[in-house]
Amino acid sequence: MDLRKLREINIRETKQKVKDSVTDDLILIQGVHAYNELIRVESRLLNVLKEWYGYYFPELTEKDNFPELIPESKNVLMKKFGIKETMGSDLSDNDVKTIKDFSKQISELKKSRISIEDYISIKMKKIAPELYKTATSIVGARLIERAGSLKHLAELPSSTIQILGAEKSLFRHLRQKTKPPKYGVIFFHPDLVKAKQDEKGKAARKLAARISIAVKQDYFRNERH
Amino acid sequence: MDLRKLREINIRETKQKVKDSVTDDLILIQGVHAYNELIRVESRLLNVLKEWYGYYFPELTEKDNFPELIPESKNVLMKKFGIKETMGSDLSDNDVKTIKDFSKQISELKKSRISIEDYISIKMKKIAPELYKTATSIVGARLIERAGSLKHLAELPSSTIQILGAEKSLFRHLRQKTKPPKYGVIFFHPDLVKAKQDEKGKAARKLAARISIAVKQDYFRNERH
Repeated sequence: MDLRKLREINIRETKQKVKDSVTDDLILIQGVHAYNELIRVESRLLNVLKEWYGYYFPELTEKDNFPELIPESKNVLMKKFGIKETMGSDLSDNDVKTIKDFSKQISELKKSRISIEDYISIKMKKIAPELYKTATSIVGARLIERAGSLKHLAELPSSTIQILGAEKSLFRHLRQKTKPPKYGVIFFHPDLVKAKQDEKGKAARKLAARISIAVKQDYFRNERH
Repeated sequence: MDLRKLREINIRETKQKVKDSVTDDLILIQGVHAYNELIRVESRLLNVLKEWYGYYFPELTEKDNFPELIPESKNVLMKKFGIKETMGSDLSDNDVKTIKDFSKQISELKKSRISIEDYISIKMKKIAPELYKTATSIVGARLIERAGSLKHLAELPSSTIQILGAEKSLFRHLRQKTKPPKYGVIFFHPDLVKAKQDEKGKAARKLAARISIAVKQDYFRNERH
């Protein structure tokens, strides 16, 4: 076999290896990045919208459902809020149209975020069904994202899983002797959300232990194939 | 006149004053906020998209027009790039669809940004036609945004206008004796973009002087009305 042919085979094999190295959890991680970024982006644009719209109808407050109410006309809003006049300025039609378009854009982003949420959920059920059941879709996916892969998450001790995603606060603890973090991304798990403030630490420890077992089941089940 | 009536008149007048205090330049500033935020958001989401899509078709590089190329199928792209095989993984249809939807969302954001750019341009022509001519639409609008109002911008000396928007670098200069900034938001003006590196400072000074005159013309023209 001549050298050129050998080289060709070599390149082909390397390319195949590169292809195969992309496992499903790595693609999931990209979905999580998109999801996290969309949440951040949504809230930043929403802040701009609130301030902008505030000149037009300041009676709309933080608590109101912003992008959903903005398409309404001023008169409809005044009726809804039970007021006869608003302190807001009479903006030009073009101003109002631009604000409403901007608001629509934020609603579109929200839809985008929700569809990526569904995508993550489908992928989680496939890659890590036990983790999905124990940690919920988003929390589980974020744990994989923080760990870097399903394999790496399966290798982590439960005490690390508990504070995964709280790296900043952990390093602050190590440097400045502040309190150590009690939880990272698992903070948004229903078990922790509903736990009382002084029981959150204990709930986090319990949950992390269960997650640690679930993720090992998922990982070694895949390994057997 | 009884006290209740007096109080009512008082409230009505105050409300009117609040209404009147919202001048057109304040609304413009909100538009600039939206514009700046959209630019930031676009670039953040684009970074996520590039990394994500990179698993599928790594041959697409930074220089390529991302959101526009992604809707193409892999085969079309391979032909376009003149390659016979890609190192990218064979993602599932759902993966590819999700990435393409995400990409579409970024294109929508871009459209949104461009329409706000048009909005800013229309408003600038109305509020500050001289500034618009001298500084261009976006640079002029950003100067008003940084100054807080057209009035305040008209009161600033040209040396401040020159570095408006470079506050961070100015304070770093004052604290740590680094070099003072030569330009702020006017950096994106065509005059400065096309100036040679060692002439940018001079060009900035000249431009700031012209802007300073233009904005005074605009402000006092409005005042006379």
